[in-house]
Amino acid sequence: MNICAISTPAGVGGIAVIRISGKQALEITDKIFQPINPEHTLTKTPGYTARYGKILKQDNTTLDEVICTVFRTPHSFTGENSVEISTHGSLYIQQETLRLLIHAGCRLATPGEFTQRAFLNGKIDLTQAEAIADLIAAQSASAHQVAINQMRGGYSHKLKQLREKLLHLTTLLELELDFSEEDVEFADRTQLKNITQDIQKLLEHLTDSFATGNAIKNGIPVAIVGETNVGKSTLLNLLVNEERALVSDIHGTTRDFIEDIVTIGGITFRIIDTAGIRNTTDTIENLGIQRTYEKIEQAQIILWLIDCTEVSEHIEWLADRIIKRAQDKQLIIVFNKLDKITTEEQNVLLQLFDNYPAEKIFISAKNKHNTDTLCQQLVAAAQIPNLSEQDVIITNMRHYESMQAALQAIRLAQYNLNNSLPSDIIAEDIRTCLHHIGNITGEITTNEILGNIFANFCIGK
Amino acid sequence: MNICAISTPAGVGGIAVIRISGKQALEITDKIFQPINPEHTLTKTPGYTARYGKILKQDNTTLDEVICTVFRTPHSFTGENSVEISTHGSLYIQQETLRLLIHAGCRLATPGEFTQRAFLNGKIDLTQAEAIADLIAAQSASAHQVAINQMRGGYSHKLKQLREKLLHLTTLLELELDFSEEDVEFADRTQLKNITQDIQKLLEHLTDSFATGNAIKNGIPVAIVGETNVGKSTLLNLLVNEERALVSDIHGTTRDFIEDIVTIGGITFRIIDTAGIRNTTDTIENLGIQRTYEKIEQAQIILWLIDCTEVSEHIEWLADRIIKRAQDKQLIIVFNKLDKITTEEQNVLLQLFDNYPAEKIFISAKNKHNTDTLCQQLVAAAQIPNLSEQDVIITNMRHYESMQAALQAIRLAQYNLNNSLPSDIIAEDIRTCLHHIGNITGEITTNEILGNIFANFCIGK
Repeated sequence: MNICAISTPAGVGGIAVIRISGKQALEITDKIFQPINPEHTLTKTPGYTARYGKILKQDNTTLDEVICTVFRTPHSFTGENSVEISTHGSLYIQQETLRLLIHAGCRLATPGEFTQRAFLNGKIDLTQAEAIADLIAAQSASAHQVAINQMRGGYSHKLKQLREKLLHLTTLLELELDFSEEDVEFADRTQLKNITQDIQKLLEHLTDSFATGNAIKNGIPVAIVGETNVGKSTLLNLLVNEERALVSDIHGTTRDFIEDIVTIGGITFRIIDTAGIRNTTDTIENLGIQRTYEKIEQAQIILWLIDCTEVSEHIEWLADRIIKRAQDKQLIIVFNKLDKITTEEQNVLLQLFDNYPAEKIFISAKNKHNTDTLCQQLVAAAQIPNLSEQDVIITNMRHYESMQAALQAIRLAQYNLNNSLPSDIIAEDIRTCLHHIGNITGEITTNEILGNIFANFCIGK
Repeated sequence: MNICAISTPAGVGGIAVIRISGKQALEITDKIFQPINPEHTLTKTPGYTARYGKILKQDNTTLDEVICTVFRTPHSFTGENSVEISTHGSLYIQQETLRLLIHAGCRLATPGEFTQRAFLNGKIDLTQAEAIADLIAAQSASAHQVAINQMRGGYSHKLKQLREKLLHLTTLLELELDFSEEDVEFADRTQLKNITQDIQKLLEHLTDSFATGNAIKNGIPVAIVGETNVGKSTLLNLLVNEERALVSDIHGTTRDFIEDIVTIGGITFRIIDTAGIRNTTDTIENLGIQRTYEKIEQAQIILWLIDCTEVSEHIEWLADRIIKRAQDKQLIIVFNKLDKITTEEQNVLLQLFDNYPAEKIFISAKNKHNTDTLCQQLVAAAQIPNLSEQDVIITNMRHYESMQAALQAIRLAQYNLNNSLPSDIIAEDIRTCLHHIGNITGEITTNEILGNIFANFCIGK
């Protein structure tokens, strides 16, 4: 079946691209496309070649003047014959072109269907297909780097090496089953132990990377806490304003469920403003403070904001509550209104907070003094390694879960090996491990898994 | 200077297209593009050919895998060397690619700069350039048809014919000036009169089309009026729901300043809900009613909505006020709640309104009964002719004003011809006419005019 969709973002722009893929993609597009040079029909056009002409409506009048680019099987994104029509970017033209293509014999593509076809035609494996969705959604340099590494096969190569080793082992083990009466060992047990250990280490390395991967993909949660009226919202705005251009682009999509997203130094932070903490008997206010405590526990970085000019007498009471909850997190104590105090007063403050294990920084949110340094501290506290093209990091929950299952199976195989259990039991463990790894790269899939994965794509990709 | 911009709509999508144009477009793009086949650098690539490869960041890591399509001067949209890079549609990739191109020697294009270059390089004239902006903005079939006719040169051909005739006349007239002492007439006065008459007719025909063109481009204003609580908002919603798909796409852009836009039968209507009219002494309410009267006067079509089950005793008072203001407009009296009354009651109502010159229709907004017929009546009342590819309609205020000025000059020329005024005065009139026509097609332009025109384009076109 031949499919078509608008591949460019929804809306009006200079140009829009409509993509057609399938065995008859060229023939179908020729029905609505009239090249300026009559020789230049798409069926006669070689791959990687563009043609200029008109899209004709059913009454043979011109809908638009367009460029059609031809890609021929297997040298296309989907692996099938494909055409990309570059039209003027009006909604009317986009919709009418789709309507004409459907009339000519295409059907509208489902979300991710082009990528799904690329997978089904063996152009990419499943991790690469999933990486394309991540790549399109990536908003920061690090999220982008992780996605492009994965798209270029970083993952799959490591996983395929694993899989080959495992397959080799299982074949030997299962050979033993055929000779089970003779008590032979084709698979050298020492070698077997070494290889399962290697595999375990690799899987552990990959699953360990998930925490980093998740932080990169979804942003690092940063809670701004402190007493009421110390300027928490001002600090939030200041941080968010640091990179206005990127922020404004994503506002609409994130406002509803996350307080504010900002990219600093190529890393995405989810910055959460909280209710001020103070000792009160007001029930409603205490509910808000309870939610602040929850947000501290969910955060990876805590910015404890203190107004230099008004350090409360309850500061120790407050410190107890914050530090208790920030123990395995990065805590930065931010003294605001630096411009209002002397160096001596700064030193007094530092002494007062000397007991608390945290980074400390003096800023003036109003004059933007030292806010660059604060941003650098945030980037450092994020603990995101500098990523190279070779780094393989897991960002996908589905992969993480499959790897955890694979890890469990390989650990069981090791345990059973160490206890010299029969080879059929060990072979069974390894088969389970193989199954879960196969799930990740797509060597083993069900329609349900595929459906779930591609349903999250945008249409036209 | 070489320019670059994102040409696809703003936002995230499957793919995005970045366009580069200028003498060094290929060399500059080669600095950031690494083809898979090392032979396939863009400078060695023929026009209308696509290449697959990577965009490399400054540290030589991969930003994205892309398709670059090469267009060579003069066979490109701008007439210059051009490249279109088709990237994955993430914001990050789009912005980084632009940043790399700028680093490699491009500058960011200003709005409409690609089209402006196409004009300056003689690929299209000014009316065609302006038609491209209209084409991209077109939301209805008729607005699209008008724009594409204009883009394909419909306008300009007629105007150029005019201009040639005029130029011929002026040359002859000005020749007479050289021999002014000898009292010769190179330009046959009868022929001159005929030709100026032809020109006058053509200009009148074109300027007359502006009312239609404006209605097509900006939508036909329809005011829904009636007493309070007769269901005006329900009718508005019903009409707007008739073509939900198109409406929902444009909502965001129009809500702010127009009540609601809907495309019915390929024609755009701006449907305006109004405050209910009744005889009241309430000052605030009377202000609202005053605004309703203004909207009636601005509208081209009036839908007077009447609740069949509750025809007010003040109906004659109301009729006076509406009909007085609707005299040169299309008035449709819409009787709602058809389902609640008998055929006899319908006839009584029709008799009651027999004196009022208007279309009359019974509907049930609730059951959507007869609303199709109402839509047909709206389309008929819009009085938009069926447009063919040959129809030339003016939609552009700038063109309209220039044509009015040209018309004034040619009328003066005729008057002076009929009164046998000296040829230098007539030549002056015709020069004025020529000047205004030259303004339209761009044979005569100032930087200021160009700046105003292209500032309204989107970036990347």
